[in-house]
Amino acid sequence: MLNEYRFFDPDPAVRRIAYELYAGVKDLPIISPHGHVDPKLLADNMPFPDPAELIIIPDHYIYRMLYSQGIRLEALGIPTRDGSPVETDHRKIWQIFAEHFYLFAGTPTGAWLAHEFVEVFGVTEKLNSANALQIYDRIQKKLAAPEFLPRALFERFNIEALSTTDAAGDSLIQHKKIREAGWKGRVIPCFRPDAVVNLEDEKWRDSLQELAQAVGFEINSYRSFIAALEDRREFFKALGATATDHAVVIPYTHELSQHDAEAIFQRARQNKTSDDDAAQFTAHMLMEMARMSVEDGLVMQIHPGSFRNHNEFIFKKFGRDKGGDIPLQTEYTRNLHALLNRYGNDPRLTLIVFTLDESTYSRELAPLAGHYPAMKLGPPWWFHDSIEGMTRFRERVTETAGIYNTAGFNDDTRAFLSIPARHDLSRRIESNYLARLVARHIIDMEDARRMSRALAYELVKKAYKLG
Amino acid sequence: MLNEYRFFDPDPAVRRIAYELYAGVKDLPIISPHGHVDPKLLADNMPFPDPAELIIIPDHYIYRMLYSQGIRLEALGIPTRDGSPVETDHRKIWQIFAEHFYLFAGTPTGAWLAHEFVEVFGVTEKLNSANALQIYDRIQKKLAAPEFLPRALFERFNIEALSTTDAAGDSLIQHKKIREAGWKGRVIPCFRPDAVVNLEDEKWRDSLQELAQAVGFEINSYRSFIAALEDRREFFKALGATATDHAVVIPYTHELSQHDAEAIFQRARQNKTSDDDAAQFTAHMLMEMARMSVEDGLVMQIHPGSFRNHNEFIFKKFGRDKGGDIPLQTEYTRNLHALLNRYGNDPRLTLIVFTLDESTYSRELAPLAGHYPAMKLGPPWWFHDSIEGMTRFRERVTETAGIYNTAGFNDDTRAFLSIPARHDLSRRIESNYLARLVARHIIDMEDARRMSRALAYELVKKAYKLG
Amino acid sequence: MLNEYRFFDPDPAVRRIAYELYAGVKDLPIISPHGHVDPKLLADNMPFPDPAELIIIPDHYIYRMLYSQGIRLEALGIPTRDGSPVETDHRKIWQIFAEHFYLFAGTPTGAWLAHEFVEVFGVTEKLNSANALQIYDRIQKKLAAPEFLPRALFERFNIEALSTTDAAGDSLIQHKKIREAGWKGRVIPCFRPDAVVNLEDEKWRDSLQELAQAVGFEINSYRSFIAALEDRREFFKALGATATDHAVVIPYTHELSQHDAEAIFQRARQNKTSDDDAAQFTAHMLMEMARMSVEDGLVMQIHPGSFRNHNEFIFKKFGRDKGGDIPLQTEYTRNLHALLNRYGNDPRLTLIVFTLDESTYSRELAPLAGHYPAMKLGPPWWFHDSIEGMTRFRERVTETAGIYNTAGFNDDTRAFLSIPARHDLSRRIESNYLARLVARHIIDMEDARRMSRALAYELVKKAYKLG
Repeated sequence: MLNEYRFFDPDPAVRRIAYELYAGVKDLPIISPHGHVDPKLLADNMPFPDPAELIIIPDHYIYRMLYSQGIRLEALGIPTRDGSPVETDHRKIWQIFAEHFYLFAGTPTGAWLAHEFVEVFGVTEKLNSANALQIYDRIQKKLAAPEFLPRALFERFNIEALSTTDAAGDSLIQHKKIREAGWKGRVIPCFRPDAVVNLEDEKWRDSLQELAQAVGFEINSYRSFIAALEDRREFFKALGATATDHAVVIPYTHELSQHDAEAIFQRARQNKTSDDDAAQFTAHMLMEMARMSVEDGLVMQIHPGSFRNHNEFIFKKFGRDKGGDIPLQTEYTRNLHALLNRYGNDPRLTLIVFTLDESTYSRELAPLAGHYPAMKLGPPWWFHDSIEGMTRFRERVTETAGIYNTAGFNDDTRAFLSIPARHDLSRRIESNYLARLVARHIIDMEDARRMSRALAYELVKKAYKLG
Repeated sequence: MLNEYRFFDPDPAVRRIAYELYAGVKDLPIISPHGHVDPKLLADNMPFPDPAELIIIPDHYIYRMLYSQGIRLEALGIPTRDGSPVETDHRKIWQIFAEHFYLFAGTPTGAWLAHEFVEVFGVTEKLNSANALQIYDRIQKKLAAPEFLPRALFERFNIEALSTTDAAGDSLIQHKKIREAGWKGRVIPCFRPDAVVNLEDEKWRDSLQELAQAVGFEINSYRSFIAALEDRREFFKALGATATDHAVVIPYTHELSQHDAEAIFQRARQNKTSDDDAAQFTAHMLMEMARMSVEDGLVMQIHPGSFRNHNEFIFKKFGRDKGGDIPLQTEYTRNLHALLNRYGNDPRLTLIVFTLDESTYSRELAPLAGHYPAMKLGPPWWFHDSIEGMTRFRERVTETAGIYNTAGFNDDTRAFLSIPARHDLSRRIESNYLARLVARHIIDMEDARRMSRALAYELVKKAYKLG
Repeated sequence: MLNEYRFFDPDPAVRRIAYELYAGVKDLPIISPHGHVDPKLLADNMPFPDPAELIIIPDHYIYRMLYSQGIRLEALGIPTRDGSPVETDHRKIWQIFAEHFYLFAGTPTGAWLAHEFVEVFGVTEKLNSANALQIYDRIQKKLAAPEFLPRALFERFNIEALSTTDAAGDSLIQHKKIREAGWKGRVIPCFRPDAVVNLEDEKWRDSLQELAQAVGFEINSYRSFIAALEDRREFFKALGATATDHAVVIPYTHELSQHDAEAIFQRARQNKTSDDDAAQFTAHMLMEMARMSVEDGLVMQIHPGSFRNHNEFIFKKFGRDKGGDIPLQTEYTRNLHALLNRYGNDPRLTLIVFTLDESTYSRELAPLAGHYPAMKLGPPWWFHDSIEGMTRFRERVTETAGIYNTAGFNDDTRAFLSIPARHDLSRRIESNYLARLVARHIIDMEDARRMSRALAYELVKKAYKLG
């Protein structure tokens, strides 16, 4: 059972205020402007196959914890790159998950799962070794019902808009299918050109080829590369996109001359890229993306500081996004200097910056967002999308940047079912944060109600131009 | 209206103790050993012109937030360097401020302004679009009265000592005027030679010229440069100074040979300074300043880690200190090694170190201050001079360094009216911090009362030798 | 007097739950798998000489604070390297300590001392200038009694296992004596080969010579060096060791070829080590230590990031471990990459990583430990072994790594008497942390009781293979 006061401070004064604020926002529609749900899910609208396929296999938040405690990914049915066999009995996978469910106590994954079980499936018992298969069967049965089809859940979850994340060369065929289906759900793409911008990506030339096919012209120069990106941004916009997204290791920004950009591009085509080339090109392309955003109005997101595929054994065997990405210390003040000086005073740009390095909240990010008109702070990301993580974010950012230089909440999830759980948790934590301000007489209830609505709904809608 | 329990924890036990501790210190005199009030204010003792001129135009804490939300500085009457026109109707400026007053909810600026309105002007309504001009007029009227003259406010604020911050070549004419006026207020200068120490400052040679004029001899060698600084320190001391202050990007300390210092100095005179020259010279001058402090007893402050004028557009148009300075990651353990090894064991030195990088509190600064007799920690600075910021400081520093290796509170303000608000907030937060220790039986009330008085008054007086 | 609810949150709901959880674990045996108690103490089992010798002189937590406030170490009886005289009247030393006892208010040292005075000696008054010598005499009298002999205290403290820390070439003669005494106390060594691994250690060749004597063969090659280390690990295991420990400045890991390792080793023998040699060799030896741990099953600990002997004046006069070590910013994601890729997926390795840089908890360490099966996080270390420090650790680590990827508690102390105080404080803070989760309905009491027992006893026993 879910306690109605869960996640609020135990102090009665704070709890009462938090509950009142939460009651005012809990039923607002969900806006999900950044995430990794596969659009095929909503294009096909087919029943989810089974609980393991739905909850465990796509969610690296879950299996990274199991892996850390010595459970092999093969035993959890995670598909291998070379097709070598993995567990196919999904009831066995579920049983392992249930036996180790206690590992998630005190983690956001534990909180989200509890919400999914109770609110989506009506399962109120705590999962354990003994009840594992009985709960599996109950969920399995529900998944067959029409009200558990993806679109039905989308509507039940009260999602006003959902953005996926898509490669520059993606055909967006699933997005077209959703539009052509006559279904009213707003599902939009987001332009993420990392694979063609990162010259060190092993598949760079393949991705460039895909991009060329998508635009229908040859990309044999930096100039045509830029033209192709501009072309694709228009195409994404036509299918509803309002934003772009850029993952970089270091958020270094620096403008190259056209001549230097062209020279690096040509070296890359000839497979002669140096490390410095790649770093300079990424830094330059962030500048170019900001320029394009000023021109075409797409909101620009930067997600820096993840050492991708840190565990090479897991990467080689299972591929990307398998729980082996690890954050790095990240610097913003010097790195974003060029971009913010060139475009940060321009009211046409919205730049939303994320971090995995919490030490930058009060030191760099809040001071930057509290000054440059173009810059907004993204919500606590990934490992920090949690009860304590969200609380630290607000406590460290608000005093310098206020709440109006932040961009509301993102769920950033691959786990479709966890969307309402994540937004509910966010709304509870923001309510509790504001309640603590009210209880200490830092703000009054009039302020708190206005801020509460902004944090739950208005800021994200405005920042991502989803009005 | 200001709640008398504001900023205290809502827990009744903590609140009761916090209030009791606060009651014991709230009326102690204010010591303000570091700040940026213009001494001319107290030398001339003329009425403040109007609310916008008093509250908005000199305070970058206020207009950086407005700027971040898209309001141009011209519209706020911030003077341009080239004299190009800005808004001169101060009622219009005030109206914009009032319309955006909600942005400050949850920020220390919001808390300080509330205190100023209520305690200084008796304005108890929350400023908004509708009441803006009526409140403007009420404040305007008060400003004309003799009890709102700067010296009258200084006395009403119960300021025991106020230090300004002054360039090495400053004539200190305003300080002389204050002394000659026969007024009993203690207003003292602080020696801040950054402009002549930083070889990369575009006006370095101008500043050096001013210094030469001030001392009355030519500065054509490193040797005469040092003699000039020593001369000026004596002059500042004669006008009451007890401290020096040094802003550096990186707090690197390193002693050069006389020969190398001279060579760098001569290259600088010939406008041939390299980046490395400037870094080495700054590092060396920190060593020299510590040496002089050992000799003349002036307390040495270091304020490192600010990337000044990050927003070049704002800097070019409006000049320094316009809200465009951004903190940098800062390292102390290696950087202060040379200085602390040379002078850190010397009881004649007091070195007060500040930071904009909170990650150094528990990692570097508390361990250093909890060991070296010469070193004390300055209070949470600038962006961290806030409710959560002060709480984090005490929670991260005290367990390693105790409270007696910290230097009490600084308001560090340009906004004269905010001085009592800032000290009151500090006293409330320190009281609350101590109350939480008492309520958890970590200290008893006898400890807490002694520590409370130290934090509010005694530590700062001792650290800055203002007894 | 010690309040029974001390260190718990004042909120009545949290306090009630915390107390209930604490009651369930407070009497569990103490496991102390990492510390610096001198084994001679338990081998000889002689009475402690006097209160100053017992409490002040061996404890740099205590005298670093006194030193920071201007008290010379000579006055505290800290022995000098050159034998120059120091205070020998221990009653005078105690008097100085008592006069400055107020400095420890709000520090963990203060909390531990209060526990020692009350629980070990029955002294319930707060130490001060007036009662100093009377308390000295009461403690002195007790120390003469048989129930205050080291082994009697070991039993009274309910210590199940205690590990010392020992150099690679140590004869472990004290450990043998303890074993041969027929006493049932479990006291084990821990293999710490820093002195022979760190090529920059001024005594490296002496330490290598000691190692050669210990193994009984000449060490004239990298190959024989490795053989000697393997030999010693077996010897340590035979005397009960279950772990090794490695202090490095930077936790950089990198595997050299045998050829390169041999070349560096030979340069070191000829006193021709470069800085880069030393860094590469340390990085390589961490790889080798992990390989040996995989083979022989010894748990591997890394304690990085301390700038040892920062205060050279203190180091030269008084030697190592005198309170002059200062933490450094530390990077783990890139530095541990080689080691974790080579051995981090191997279930035979247990790697326990510590930090003095709290900014790495949520950014690097929790993500690494929440993924790699071999890696566990050591408890908050040294300056962070405190009420706020432990709380920050759990709040920043648990949401990503859970509690089962952490290694319980270490006291890491030289101060034998403080062992129960430190474990009691840890058990209280962990109970309080869990109580806050329960009170916010993040976990339930069933979870909390299981987690509480794990944190107090089971995790440390399992991680250090002390079952």
